[in-house]
Amino acid sequence: MLSVNTYEKEFLQLLKKISQYEQAINVMYWDMRTGAPKKGEEYRSEAIGQLSADVFQMRTSKRMKELLDALSEQKENLPHDTQKAVEEAKKEYELNSKIPEDEFKEYTTLTSKAESVWEEAKTSSDFSLFSPYLEKIIDFKKRFITYWGYEGHPYNALLDLYEPGVTVKTLDALFSELRESIVPLVQKIADSPQKPDTSFVNKHFPKERQRELCHFFLAELGYDFHAGRLDETVHPFQITISPGDARVTTAYNESDFRSAVFGTIHECGHAIYEQNIDEALSGTNLSEGASMGVHESQSLFYENFIGRHPGFWKRYFYKIKEASPEQFQGVTAEAFYRAVNESKPSLIRIDADELTYPLHIMIRYEIEKAIFSGEVSVEDLPKLWNEKYEAYLGITPPDDAKGILQDVHWSGGDFGYFPSYALGYMYAAQLRANMLEDLPAFDQLIENGEFQPIKKWLTDHVHVHGKRKKPLEIMKAATGEELNVRYLISYLEEKYTNLYL
Amino acid sequence: MLSVNTYEKEFLQLLKKISQYEQAINVMYWDMRTGAPKKGEEYRSEAIGQLSADVFQMRTSKRMKELLDALSEQKENLPHDTQKAVEEAKKEYELNSKIPEDEFKEYTTLTSKAESVWEEAKTSSDFSLFSPYLEKIIDFKKRFITYWGYEGHPYNALLDLYEPGVTVKTLDALFSELRESIVPLVQKIADSPQKPDTSFVNKHFPKERQRELCHFFLAELGYDFHAGRLDETVHPFQITISPGDARVTTAYNESDFRSAVFGTIHECGHAIYEQNIDEALSGTNLSEGASMGVHESQSLFYENFIGRHPGFWKRYFYKIKEASPEQFQGVTAEAFYRAVNESKPSLIRIDADELTYPLHIMIRYEIEKAIFSGEVSVEDLPKLWNEKYEAYLGITPPDDAKGILQDVHWSGGDFGYFPSYALGYMYAAQLRANMLEDLPAFDQLIENGEFQPIKKWLTDHVHVHGKRKKPLEIMKAATGEELNVRYLISYLEEKYTNLYL
Repeated sequence: MLSVNTYEKEFLQLLKKISQYEQAINVMYWDMRTGAPKKGEEYRSEAIGQLSADVFQMRTSKRMKELLDALSEQKENLPHDTQKAVEEAKKEYELNSKIPEDEFKEYTTLTSKAESVWEEAKTSSDFSLFSPYLEKIIDFKKRFITYWGYEGHPYNALLDLYEPGVTVKTLDALFSELRESIVPLVQKIADSPQKPDTSFVNKHFPKERQRELCHFFLAELGYDFHAGRLDETVHPFQITISPGDARVTTAYNESDFRSAVFGTIHECGHAIYEQNIDEALSGTNLSEGASMGVHESQSLFYENFIGRHPGFWKRYFYKIKEASPEQFQGVTAEAFYRAVNESKPSLIRIDADELTYPLHIMIRYEIEKAIFSGEVSVEDLPKLWNEKYEAYLGITPPDDAKGILQDVHWSGGDFGYFPSYALGYMYAAQLRANMLEDLPAFDQLIENGEFQPIKKWLTDHVHVHGKRKKPLEIMKAATGEELNVRYLISYLEEKYTNLYL
Repeated sequence: MLSVNTYEKEFLQLLKKISQYEQAINVMYWDMRTGAPKKGEEYRSEAIGQLSADVFQMRTSKRMKELLDALSEQKENLPHDTQKAVEEAKKEYELNSKIPEDEFKEYTTLTSKAESVWEEAKTSSDFSLFSPYLEKIIDFKKRFITYWGYEGHPYNALLDLYEPGVTVKTLDALFSELRESIVPLVQKIADSPQKPDTSFVNKHFPKERQRELCHFFLAELGYDFHAGRLDETVHPFQITISPGDARVTTAYNESDFRSAVFGTIHECGHAIYEQNIDEALSGTNLSEGASMGVHESQSLFYENFIGRHPGFWKRYFYKIKEASPEQFQGVTAEAFYRAVNESKPSLIRIDADELTYPLHIMIRYEIEKAIFSGEVSVEDLPKLWNEKYEAYLGITPPDDAKGILQDVHWSGGDFGYFPSYALGYMYAAQLRANMLEDLPAFDQLIENGEFQPIKKWLTDHVHVHGKRKKPLEIMKAATGEELNVRYLISYLEEKYTNLYL
């Protein structure tokens, strides 16, 4: 029989090979989204498909199973990181291997077709085009849930894909507390006579100046340009190519500079996370963020707690003014800060402000939960969607394009994903509260442009661990308590009372 | 027993998979050379190494051998393209599988180390640093030649790697005829009092304007930007990612615009070749240029016969002038044309002009031939190099950096590669002579900026075939005769007599 060391070595080599294939896939994807020529698109999709299939094969191979079995048996003799890597690979193996291969192929074909159907449906604002696909995707997902198994609510199986350890029970409690505080606050703000002047926001801001600003802010915030780059795209994203290469993309809108400036600061948070994961984890399946939600906690921390902080604009408003002097003639840093923190109910999630954003998430959470408990049929979804927007935000979508068809997620079968956006926000606020104890001069640091201590705190408590720890373990270790939504509520109440009331 | 169709299908699928891996490798390589961050370099090299090893494995696998044997047996029942693809894959299989695996690995490690040693040796202009590596590389190559087998001169085995069908016998005849005409012409030009004014060449030409010009010329010449893109790099190259994606790179030197302008036109010729290969060959091993030399014939055709044509600058000199008005104040199109066609003996191959360039190649050819016939030892190479420069060009390198250490090729074991540069030039001149019969208004077409008929002629006679035909078959079919160096000689004599005598 081979020694545990031999198995460990082979296992780690296999993980490394997988990570190298993922590097290839990610470069090809990044390239496709940042300027690859049109005529190469189909060849590119096919090549990505081939390499993805090869990765799937490696992750679910007989040899992988043998290695995982052998290593699991001798778990106590393995180094800590290898134990965690085995757990992670095993989870992945089971998720993938429990679904019959033919069924998975059919599902993959369905979702890749569904995305273009969804696009068409959104363009013509016609839910009936998309609903037959959505119905089939939901049926697949329901079967997958039975293959995987679950405890409590069937939706838990989907939540676990994105936020291991988080359940319907946890979310119901957190969201209900959050809703009770936010809904009245949103109402009070709507009634407040004190509104920011936003007349200068949508004036022309030259693209080239936006690009320079984005580079500037990334560098200021501690993004390492020797381990990444910034490029233009249509739908911005952060992508990690390798442990030495965490890239940021952004979109420049000349009549709304906010998308590039705040979008870049958001992706910067993701990228700084990736740039500061322990290098010892390189080439393993632990060299990534702990979860979708923890990742989002970092991007939201940078975007909102730093990028929308009054001290940040006290320091940097002159840069904005320099970049587009006509637009900001006569505008003060204070007025700018108020304008970029405007809050009002809106229909589109991705355009929502900090305060109303969680409500968009809750609506999606409640609808997804209802879908998987079988309480709502697909045909009734638009009605349910619109009712919830009226109840939580006081507005009703005029059509499905601005309502239930706005997000791409469901067309790709990504149910259970939305809650991570709100969880990320809660994590971020709880981390911030604890950081304030260690760094009482937090506000002053931001006003001074001294981001290094803030980055270091986040690295020490979050980034460095990669996927060694589960999301709730990270929170517990970093903050000494379970996830607690009060931190987010206090933050929002304080900020928006100051701004509006 | 399986039918020939079943084998053919599997064989073509395997070729397609290989082409998809090559797409991944090429995107990763392109990215590494056009802006990937420094800290990702090592991870990138490892990933490229892994995927290259997987491609090697697919090309030399037991299954590949079985497929090739089965298909070769029933060759007559296969479509023509599949027959050619089988031949090509077989050639590759044999080249790779004849070398013992351990020996090949050792060789790969040696050459990857040798490149950095060569760089160091070049920097310090010290051949003795590099010579032990060169000696080992030559020993490996000599053994490889015995594994592969050869007819006539052992160097033929190396020539065949880059220019199938071309031998020492052919090259000796061609080069001797070429030398007899060029050497005296170079001498006459050196003695001529009629010299171009080149005083404006090295003045400041802003990089951004160079970039715009390069885009402009690519578009004018018929490069398809929907199937490619132009990027900046250090050592320019053309790279094909997929049949819909043939990219060009260039380097901008603000004190010498020629490197970007003529370099881009050169790479444009390579890219137009790749963009116009028959799509029916996509995903096979025939969807590439026929050989290194045929590829070079296309890049040299564009660079020299179009880009250095007097009519080209009659038409486009105003663009150059617009882009850098101060630099070209008072300069005429005619003076510009003369300046960019200056000819004089020089030490560095890649900076050589059209006329003296073939002499640089002949020197390398003669030295390589002497190495593989055992007529010269590694330690005597610098002396031999310097003697030949004195004999052919009338100048002696002051040191090894400007002499024998100038080219990277040998450090990578690329012996037999240099002659393709000169062959490409001969192919190009012979094609041009035949094109002139079909397109007697060639000069006028260039002056009118009508490149479409020229491109179409090259596509019909060269590009479309991809690797379906061998280099000399392409020449025979396109021009009705064997390779004939007289066309190049006439072209050079006519052009340089007009310019200088």
